[in-house]
Amino acid sequence: MIKTDILIIGAGPTGLFTVFEAGLLKLKCHLIDALPQPGGQCAEIYPKKPIYDIPAFPEILAGDLVTNLLEQIKPFEPTYTLGERADTIDKLDDGTFIVTTNKGTKHHAPVVVIAGGLGSFEPRKPQLDNIADFEDKGVAYIIKDPEVYRDKKVLIAGGGDSALDWSIFLADVASEVYLVHRRNEFRGALDSVEKVGELSKRGKIEVITEAEVTKLHGDDQLEAVTVKHKSNGESHIAVDNFIPLFGLSPKLGPIANWGLEIEKNAIKVDNAYDYATNIPGIYAVGDVNTYPGKLKLILSGFHEAAIMCQSAYQRIFPDKRYVMKYTTVGGVKGFDGSVKEAKKEVVKSIV
Amino acid sequence: MIKTDILIIGAGPTGLFTVFEAGLLKLKCHLIDALPQPGGQCAEIYPKKPIYDIPAFPEILAGDLVTNLLEQIKPFEPTYTLGERADTIDKLDDGTFIVTTNKGTKHHAPVVVIAGGLGSFEPRKPQLDNIADFEDKGVAYIIKDPEVYRDKKVLIAGGGDSALDWSIFLADVASEVYLVHRRNEFRGALDSVEKVGELSKRGKIEVITEAEVTKLHGDDQLEAVTVKHKSNGESHIAVDNFIPLFGLSPKLGPIANWGLEIEKNAIKVDNAYDYATNIPGIYAVGDVNTYPGKLKLILSGFHEAAIMCQSAYQRIFPDKRYVMKYTTVGGVKGFDGSVKEAKKEVVKSIV
Ligand SMILES: Cc1cc2nc3c(=O)[nH]c(=O)nc-3n(C[C@H](O)[C@H](O)[C@H](O)COP(=O)(O)OP(=O)(O)OC[C@H]3O[C@@H](n4cnc5c(N)ncnc54)[C@H](O)[C@@H]3O)c2cc1C
Ligand SMILES: Cc1cc2nc3c(=O)[nH]c(=O)nc-3n(C[C@H](O)[C@H](O)[C@H](O)COP(=O)(O)OP(=O)(O)OC[C@H]3O[C@@H](n4cnc5c(N)ncnc54)[C@H](O)[C@@H]3O)c2cc1C
Repeated sequence: MIKTDILIIGAGPTGLFTVFEAGLLKLKCHLIDALPQPGGQCAEIYPKKPIYDIPAFPEILAGDLVTNLLEQIKPFEPTYTLGERADTIDKLDDGTFIVTTNKGTKHHAPVVVIAGGLGSFEPRKPQLDNIADFEDKGVAYIIKDPEVYRDKKVLIAGGGDSALDWSIFLADVASEVYLVHRRNEFRGALDSVEKVGELSKRGKIEVITEAEVTKLHGDDQLEAVTVKHKSNGESHIAVDNFIPLFGLSPKLGPIANWGLEIEKNAIKVDNAYDYATNIPGIYAVGDVNTYPGKLKLILSGFHEAAIMCQSAYQRIFPDKRYVMKYTTVGGVKGFDGSVKEAKKEVVKSIV
Repeated sequence: MIKTDILIIGAGPTGLFTVFEAGLLKLKCHLIDALPQPGGQCAEIYPKKPIYDIPAFPEILAGDLVTNLLEQIKPFEPTYTLGERADTIDKLDDGTFIVTTNKGTKHHAPVVVIAGGLGSFEPRKPQLDNIADFEDKGVAYIIKDPEVYRDKKVLIAGGGDSALDWSIFLADVASEVYLVHRRNEFRGALDSVEKVGELSKRGKIEVITEAEVTKLHGDDQLEAVTVKHKSNGESHIAVDNFIPLFGLSPKLGPIANWGLEIEKNAIKVDNAYDYATNIPGIYAVGDVNTYPGKLKLILSGFHEAAIMCQSAYQRIFPDKRYVMKYTTVGGVKGFDGSVKEAKKEVVKSIV
């Protein structure tokens, strides 16, 4: 059982900044995310694209925003359950919560913050009869640890950046890499497309276009796939792994059944006060919440997180009164022992 | 008469970021500030101190935050009335407003946004009988244009960073610089204190400590001051200018009489929707507003500005419907003709 002060569901920009605001109040955070890495939409959908409306950044790549946030919260030592989806919640008699993931990991906290964005990112799966039988037995939809594929025969399907980038990466890890795509054209960064072309010429990646995987074979563990070509029939390819990278689509998913008030696929919160949901002890911040005038902007998630943490503090310590201090004045005292403080003014006589 | 879409009172971080959010909606902004430079508290009180809770900046100097914001809003070409205080407001029959400053400058706009922070920064004035007679006739409390002091005999009073920094700066501009301070100790950055010491040795600044200005002399224009020493009597110093730099203290000031609902020296707004005040067409954002749970944080001002601009847009264009686009997707089109846009994805065939 993982125990923490604030359990955050969703490690997008809002969830990450919540760690910082909670940390200033000396509250520890643990984050759950269905994706294998933190950063939410910014990391998963558009890490290489610039954002122009993050205050005081005339321009910042979404991926750099995530890197900066991770750096900013480091002193508060957040912990993570990654690659797992928060599925169920139970409220105990003492008002605290237990949140369990699809892999059975349990988390216990007095406050739960849903920073789930557009929802948990779920892979788009190809329509193949027996694909479920091979999940985690050769078939995977996201790559968590590339070392799993060392010296394996790997077939990646897809035509976007993930398919391209992982093909390039695994070319040095796996013994054989196949890249199968339905069309002749790829939709990805120019240099990735060129790199795959080059590795294909050098025989490190076998690119098979206008083709798709139609059958999976194996007893228990995946052993081979059938690839159907648009023009000249089918081929049988012996592989250890089949990784369809057809993109991820977010789904509010199981959270929709937690008894929270839902409107337009988002969670209703009290924006006139503390971004609390209708269940005391559960808050919702960032893209996942809704209220009159809501803007799904990153900068709004930051403000909501700051306000919400004050209310969470009062819930956890009903008898303490927190007096806010500016970070410039009070500094930042990390749980890792680090301290940041503005230099004090100097008093000195001249004559 | 200055005309604009949104008239912003206060050019602190909140006022500045309002220009950006308004600009995305193609609304023009003009800013009024009592200070001679934009940046509010950050620029005036602690430009050299680090802030730690600006999202995605693990650390940023307050002065750099202002510089970045000015860079970010540049494409939207904001205009300014600086060094003047917004004093009165009149609502015209068509629902628009005229705001007049203490110097008589008039501004006309359909929407007024008060981003006045803790209030208009007013200089702390020394208690000298006839000081008002010499204001703008040799006596000044803030330095707007240092060239005014070229080849003049200038006496600065004060013991903080402004007194030190301006003495250093004017040592190269004025013909004579006196620095008078009540105590023997200065309260400023170490290197400024040292620099003044050095300039004093070289005869560029005459430092007079444990002393204060007690009388002002002159017909119409200032001609001399009396300095009283703690120990050995008085001296008469011929000067063209007397600049007491005793700090600035913010006062909500005349805005308090505009008919707005005031609570705890701040303006009540509707945080459940759009940060509007009780007077339709007037909004209040940033430190100057108050609502349940309000945090006087810079990041909150940013969010409030974004939300408020949507409502302002509806007020200015009641019949248009604005569909928000992410800056990453829609780009930023400045009024100066500049365009920022994310590079489009590339579609290319490999084989
Ligand atoms: C192409 C594009 C461009 C954009 N441009 C801009 C822009 O210019 N400016 C701007 O402000 N915004 C922009 N946005 C929107 C911005 O990315 C979002 O506002 C922001 O990511 C929201 O952050 P968040 O932390 O609330 O949610 P998200 O970033 O969506 O993160 C939520 C996380 O929660 C996880 N999660 C959800 N449910 C569960 C569950 N049950 N279990 C485990 N994990 C779960 C998800 O996997 C996800 O990682 C853009 C978005 C896109 C797609
Ligand atoms: C030492 C110190 C450290 C701080 N540290 C932090 C920190 O770590 N994190 C954080 O988030 N915040 C911090 N703050 C607070 C932060 O500076 C404020 O929240 C922020 O400046 C508010 O911005 P604003 O634009 O709303 O108002 P302000 O910065 O106060 O700007 C308001 C401007 O409006 C002008 N104005 C007001 N009335 C009038 C009028 N009638 N006519 C003309 N002009 C007018 C004023 O002259 C001023 O320039 C700190 C403040 C101080 C003093």
